[in-house]
Amino acid sequence: MTAPERLSAGAIAAAVTAGESSAVAVMEATLARLAAYDAIQPQVWISRADPQALLDAARAIDARVAAGEYLPLAGVPYAAKDNIDVAGLETTAACPAFAYQPERSATVIERLEGAGAICVGKTNLDQFATGLVGTRSPYGAPRNASNLAYVSGGSSSGSAVAVAAGLVAFALATDTAGSGRVPAAFNHLVGLKPTKGRWSTQGLVPACRSIDCITVFTDAPGDAALVDSVVAGFDAADPFSRPLADVAIAGKRIGVPRPDQRVFFGDLQSEELYARALAVLGQTHALVEVDIAPLLEAAQLLYGGPWVAERTAAVEALLQSDPDAIEPTVRSILEPGLAMTAVETWNGIYRLAELARHAEALWHHVDALAFPTTGTTYRVAELAAAPVALNSNLGRYTNFVNLLDMAAVAVPAGARHNGTGFGITLIGPAHSDLALIAMAQDYLAAAMLPALPPLDLGDHMDTVKLAVVGAHLEGMPLHWQLTSRSAKFIGAFTTAPTYRLYAMADSVPPKPALVHSPDGGEIALEVYELGMAEFGSFVAEVPPPLAIGTVTLADGTSVKGFVAEPRATLGAEDITHLGGWRAYIGRD
Amino acid sequence: MTAPERLSAGAIAAAVTAGESSAVAVMEATLARLAAYDAIQPQVWISRADPQALLDAARAIDARVAAGEYLPLAGVPYAAKDNIDVAGLETTAACPAFAYQPERSATVIERLEGAGAICVGKTNLDQFATGLVGTRSPYGAPRNASNLAYVSGGSSSGSAVAVAAGLVAFALATDTAGSGRVPAAFNHLVGLKPTKGRWSTQGLVPACRSIDCITVFTDAPGDAALVDSVVAGFDAADPFSRPLADVAIAGKRIGVPRPDQRVFFGDLQSEELYARALAVLGQTHALVEVDIAPLLEAAQLLYGGPWVAERTAAVEALLQSDPDAIEPTVRSILEPGLAMTAVETWNGIYRLAELARHAEALWHHVDALAFPTTGTTYRVAELAAAPVALNSNLGRYTNFVNLLDMAAVAVPAGARHNGTGFGITLIGPAHSDLALIAMAQDYLAAAMLPALPPLDLGDHMDTVKLAVVGAHLEGMPLHWQLTSRSAKFIGAFTTAPTYRLYAMADSVPPKPALVHSPDGGEIALEVYELGMAEFGSFVAEVPPPLAIGTVTLADGTSVKGFVAEPRATLGAEDITHLGGWRAYIGRD
Repeated sequence: MTAPERLSAGAIAAAVTAGESSAVAVMEATLARLAAYDAIQPQVWISRADPQALLDAARAIDARVAAGEYLPLAGVPYAAKDNIDVAGLETTAACPAFAYQPERSATVIERLEGAGAICVGKTNLDQFATGLVGTRSPYGAPRNASNLAYVSGGSSSGSAVAVAAGLVAFALATDTAGSGRVPAAFNHLVGLKPTKGRWSTQGLVPACRSIDCITVFTDAPGDAALVDSVVAGFDAADPFSRPLADVAIAGKRIGVPRPDQRVFFGDLQSEELYARALAVLGQTHALVEVDIAPLLEAAQLLYGGPWVAERTAAVEALLQSDPDAIEPTVRSILEPGLAMTAVETWNGIYRLAELARHAEALWHHVDALAFPTTGTTYRVAELAAAPVALNSNLGRYTNFVNLLDMAAVAVPAGARHNGTGFGITLIGPAHSDLALIAMAQDYLAAAMLPALPPLDLGDHMDTVKLAVVGAHLEGMPLHWQLTSRSAKFIGAFTTAPTYRLYAMADSVPPKPALVHSPDGGEIALEVYELGMAEFGSFVAEVPPPLAIGTVTLADGTSVKGFVAEPRATLGAEDITHLGGWRAYIGRD
Repeated sequence: MTAPERLSAGAIAAAVTAGESSAVAVMEATLARLAAYDAIQPQVWISRADPQALLDAARAIDARVAAGEYLPLAGVPYAAKDNIDVAGLETTAACPAFAYQPERSATVIERLEGAGAICVGKTNLDQFATGLVGTRSPYGAPRNASNLAYVSGGSSSGSAVAVAAGLVAFALATDTAGSGRVPAAFNHLVGLKPTKGRWSTQGLVPACRSIDCITVFTDAPGDAALVDSVVAGFDAADPFSRPLADVAIAGKRIGVPRPDQRVFFGDLQSEELYARALAVLGQTHALVEVDIAPLLEAAQLLYGGPWVAERTAAVEALLQSDPDAIEPTVRSILEPGLAMTAVETWNGIYRLAELARHAEALWHHVDALAFPTTGTTYRVAELAAAPVALNSNLGRYTNFVNLLDMAAVAVPAGARHNGTGFGITLIGPAHSDLALIAMAQDYLAAAMLPALPPLDLGDHMDTVKLAVVGAHLEGMPLHWQLTSRSAKFIGAFTTAPTYRLYAMADSVPPKPALVHSPDGGEIALEVYELGMAEFGSFVAEVPPPLAIGTVTLADGTSVKGFVAEPRATLGAEDITHLGGWRAYIGRD
């Protein structure tokens, strides 16, 4: 498996609408991609929809399109973070003891389905959306799609990887402290964190209910705008929903932190990438240094103030009845909320209101902010050693945004040498969502970022050794089917002396058939190692009468390899005596 | 003292601006009114500005007007509830242990002073603005201006009485649970409770800081609009301030509680007065019965939910360090807030958000609400027996308004037989303030309410017995100077036998002079009882050479009475032998 093309929701919908593709074809390809990446990171998912049901849904979309219905997301496969209700799939919030079967889908899901999108599954997350790392889930830790040693970012870990790996065109995430932005940065994605209340949170498991936002990851800003156009809008069922009130960002002044307030935690590459991003923005905007101290103080309130108790309130019953059911780090964050007082809460609310005034004053001086999304990133192993402190570092530039009622778009801004993504976030006042998306488009057009690093398919991934004996040998016509799957050459060996080799009749290109036989010889072969998904797709392409079975090598070990049906030898020439296909081909 | 005319801010400012009066003249009259009513209810005030300073301030206003400056409140005397900072006067919030000297005035005070208004003093209140009754203050309980046996309403007790008694043209109050509306109803006043954030609360001692409003009591809606025009507007120094965003109320549909939800606590007169008010409104509006259950549930949150802890937060230091310094009923309300948790607080905030959605739905069906301001009223003695439960009854129709982000105008709607006021409150969505004021004007124009009941000057008021011997006797030309001051006839008596009586020369109308003399006789006189203020104003009108001194009666007791300067007898006729003025006049 090489890095697949990422998907474009707009392109898929256009193709399906135009009849150039079909929802069924898209879904079939999606199912193959999903199956393939399951070999790399099955922990991206907590549950997946039944494939047959997905194909049925796709057929229904095709029928509606054929009937002339316009569906802006016709046939677009997407994923939803597993704290968002999708009817028919369990909602776990990454806590099995908390899981329930929702009776109906969240409002945003209903709107997406109404527009023709198809939800393929529910993605993993930091439990109860509490974390910016992706390591706090009993369902495993999704890893950075570009470097599996690094965290995916969280809490919307699975959703970010699903889009980054090209499995779905977009994925719903959520964002309270930065969960819809940090994983976008790490995985080279766009992350739209809409204005609070712009997207209904009806059907969302709350983290901090008063400031939670449902968000989306996409490959490009245009897809974020497309999803927003379907999902945004008032929902009376959500007490925190607000009417749309889009505002333009007229000016050209972009706020950046004062140099002494730019903290990268020693990550020189991030510092350099941020400087590069500012250089791009500076070509068309005035960069204005602003004092971000009030923002940083507000950020501190999220985990150092009464908002912690919102998280506690969301899971209080479970925390009281079965605390051991909660992931230890998450539990260590939620438990102090039980002891917080109402008076502390109000004082925190007052302090935030004061800080909001300071923050609002920013908009007199600048039209938007362009901050690093995070100052750095961390290895999964590092997080394990300091799960709270490092998580906190990751929120420096994100934690204040929801508290201060701002909109944000996280945008890719290059890769570190290790392949992990660095990003900037464009931040504006409430209701500036569309203006920020447009600004993100302009930035990306000007930035001309290098090509994405390849997906990391892992050293530790499940692989299969495959013996080839004919047209797939090095230099032979079908060898590309191995190289295109990143197959790794293990060595040239021979079979145990119990095989006969035949040159099949009428095979194009010419191909042999390896047949087990007590009175055979040792046949030359080459052994390659493939990822499980790649192996699967390779097998899928093997034409009859050939097949992939088990081949015993001269040393007595077995590998997978080409075998043949009995009919393969009909009219075939026995070439066992040549000791291998290369000798047979060379004979011509 | 009879019921004085109430003052009109608009009329005063217009007269001062036009030069028909002066700020100094207005202030002199105001000082006299204040002094007079001090004899009735000194407990209306916690502190008063120095009279000389007030006159100096008035002179300064006159100078500015003379210089051509336009001051919309030129020379208008007003009062401020003593939880609002006024530089130069202590702020107590009705708690001596809490008192402090503010360095600067609240924003609303600064704006009023900038417009030419003059603050004459700080009014009494339920301590920390916690109450709807007016009985919870160590500075005494202001009583209903129309019936001293009844509560004034609170917490803005003193402010309401100050306006009702005609002492000031308007008074700033505050309103969290109804404190700017309930006292308006009881005292036949208009009470504007602006949209939350419309009037800055910078410089206000918080009750529930997130929903506190500064408000105003006036005699008529026009004055409320005038004060609003000066005070309203964004204030960056108040974290809860909001920009102005006036909305019109287009329609003609007024919501009223379902009949089964109209509770008057057995007060049939209130029920009748409400029906009458609805009949008036029904002439020009469609009355729509609405289910007020969501409003009532929200109301319950104010004292049954986490908002109690806002009150606790406001005075936490004192509550912890010196709880005995807090009024016992107030303390019993504040103390439970210490034990409330952050989780309870957030759950309350969520529930309120849900209820707000229900409430918002009301505005699809009606343009405004017209509710009783209160269902009934209570005697001070009744409140003493059940200080919390009866207070709670008074908040039934007011407690939800601020929580649900509504504006309100309390309007008089008639008097009970006992003279206490009944009122209705017009309630609209946020930013409907001006529309509600206009609606209040229309209502009052159509209601044609009967004349206000007289001020209750009390049985227990300080009075003076005054002996008259001449032109003030019953049937004599100046007797009206007693009747116009509600003087009560005590009896006809004679002096001790130590007085001589003279008919003065050239006195118009003819008047005698009573002169103490060891060799006098017993002179007939009449004794009247006057209120202290009335007595003072009577004395002020006595022309020389007469004076008010002390007269000894035949029984040896002394009363105040007419005496004379020595010059009074120049050219006068000694008529002592006639035994009294009536005999002398009858002689003609």
